[in-house]
Amino acid sequence: MSGRLSFQVVLPVSIDASIETLAAALKEEGFGILTRIDTHKIFKEKLDVDTRPFIILGVCNPVLAHKALSVNPSVGLFLPCKVTVEEVSDGTLISIADPEIILSNGHFEESEIVSEFGPEARERLLQVAERLRE
Amino acid sequence: MSGRLSFQVVLPVSIDASIETLAAALKEEGFGILTRIDTHKIFKEKLDVDTRPFIILGVCNPVLAHKALSVNPSVGLFLPCKVTVEEVSDGTLISIADPEIILSNGHFEESEIVSEFGPEARERLLQVAERLRE
Repeated sequence: MSGRLSFQVVLPVSIDASIETLAAALKEEGFGILTRIDTHKIFKEKLDVDTRPFIILGVCNPVLAHKALSVNPSVGLFLPCKVTVEEVSDGTLISIADPEIILSNGHFEESEIVSEFGPEARERLLQVAERLRE
Repeated sequence: MSGRLSFQVVLPVSIDASIETLAAALKEEGFGILTRIDTHKIFKEKLDVDTRPFIILGVCNPVLAHKALSVNPSVGLFLPCKVTVEEVSDGTLISIADPEIILSNGHFEESEIVSEFGPEARERLLQVAERLRE
């Protein structure tokens, strides 16, 4: 399921080390990590339930985001791009959401600039996944 | 365009006052504001361009998110729900993304719990918009 929605990589290291590696790979493609939600901490605090470490990051390439938002503010409803980071048996699973799939329900086809945004963000995030696999 | 993707309300007050009102209305439906991106500040800092105030909030109902995530971690790629807050000529425009539209590309139909998540989140966020209109 998630394989169709995201580019996935398992790194044989801790979550913290994975996020550091991820941040460096994202930076190479002009993306920064803007938001971080530690879902397990929120579920513990709000619901008093124990869940495995599962983090949702919001990542953004300001050049791409600025171009798309200035043409159509509705793109903001799909930003930032999402990356989930979770503990799995053999290390840390990183899932980088495919921006084209995420954006496809926005029906932005009529705008050339916005319709270029998805493929370009996708290409760059695929590069990030490739770099993580090396 | 954005009317099809989100529930929109214009409040005749400042952005800061709007976000306070929004936060109170969200709380009534079990949602908290988890993330905030001031895009105009990021574009100024990273690109040195001036843009109008445009804020992207990430909002989450922990009960709903926990239920959906424990069944299918891929839902994390679509969380948190998005709300954009922007300066317009007659006040502040609040656009609450329709979770059903956002989730529909996830193809989560096969899971009853996840497929209930979208409609329930949608119903609650519609209530938030109604409350803001009062």
